[in-house]
Amino acid sequence: MPRKVYLAGPEVFLPDATEVGRRKVEICARYGLLGVFPLDLDSSPGPTTSPATFKACVAAMHDAAAIVANLTPFRGAGADPGTAFELGYVFALGRPVFGYTNDPVAHVERVRSRFGPLRREGDSLFAADGFAVENFELFDNLMLAEVLLESGPGVFIPQMPVADPTRDLATFERCVAHAAESLREAGQG
Amino acid sequence: MPRKVYLAGPEVFLPDATEVGRRKVEICARYGLLGVFPLDLDSSPGPTTSPATFKACVAAMHDAAAIVANLTPFRGAGADPGTAFELGYVFALGRPVFGYTNDPVAHVERVRSRFGPLRREGDSLFAADGFAVENFELFDNLMLAEVLLESGPGVFIPQMPVADPTRDLATFERCVAHAAESLREAGQG
Repeated sequence: MPRKVYLAGPEVFLPDATEVGRRKVEICARYGLLGVFPLDLDSSPGPTTSPATFKACVAAMHDAAAIVANLTPFRGAGADPGTAFELGYVFALGRPVFGYTNDPVAHVERVRSRFGPLRREGDSLFAADGFAVENFELFDNLMLAEVLLESGPGVFIPQMPVADPTRDLATFERCVAHAAESLREAGQG
Repeated sequence: MPRKVYLAGPEVFLPDATEVGRRKVEICARYGLLGVFPLDLDSSPGPTTSPATFKACVAAMHDAAAIVANLTPFRGAGADPGTAFELGYVFALGRPVFGYTNDPVAHVERVRSRFGPLRREGDSLFAADGFAVENFELFDNLMLAEVLLESGPGVFIPQMPVADPTRDLATFERCVAHAAESLREAGQG
């Protein structure tokens, strides 16, 4: 029986989300894992509701051996907050957490490119929006970056430029390969 | 001994974060709660490091009876991903979760105002960034909106326009008042 891996990420919002999910599940299968794509959870007739989706996702996370989260920036400088929520949820359950981003750019540079020049003040760096920028050479908020170091080598980032960051699955596949090996080593694979 | 409440939110990035945190803790005290502001956790000498901050925040969440999360949009259309992570973490621990936003605008309108006109396609609504927009009349991603309904009345939003959304604590105070009552009723206050 293959171990279930919860596939979090903002690709559920793509017009071709179902197809992207199918490809993700297929890649998981190649590494002996059962990928659980959130959009596949709703089997009830009638329109999708918000409470039903929430309950289905929470149940699926409980049921999963691990999470593989797509932390590519979504509608802003950082990861999709829904995905970040799920990453925290699965981590608190004590399960291994894995993640990747299709944007190789560091957090500081992401903020600079969206909000303009940064300003240094003592040890701190501030963006033009008036807020400080975490300056740790990480890819996103430190909570997301550090939690991935609890279960593995940290975030997976592209090895070469990505033409279509919303659909490219090369970095996802490297992340899944690592997750599969890691779960196997932990006797869960 | 007052119950501890973890105070999550992007105000830790303000230049005057310490002062905002002090005001938040003061409001908590007025309702019989011990507010734990993340910036107050670092008592080690020398510069703050990313792993130490992560560990301190995780330990503080474990130690808290509940979380009060500031889910005001941060550097994008949605909540700060670090705050969203913490909301998921505390929820998975089985503790009550409370949250507020100083931006009363709904998710759909937030996306429209940042990315331009929306396009309807069948039952779905798409933004100009090519991604679908959750159309549930919620304030943010449905995971964030629904989780707040598990412990209370949902997200707290301003009753009147907010001049300084990054520092105004009126809605925070209403949220804390509710959290205090709710924890008391549950025999934890």
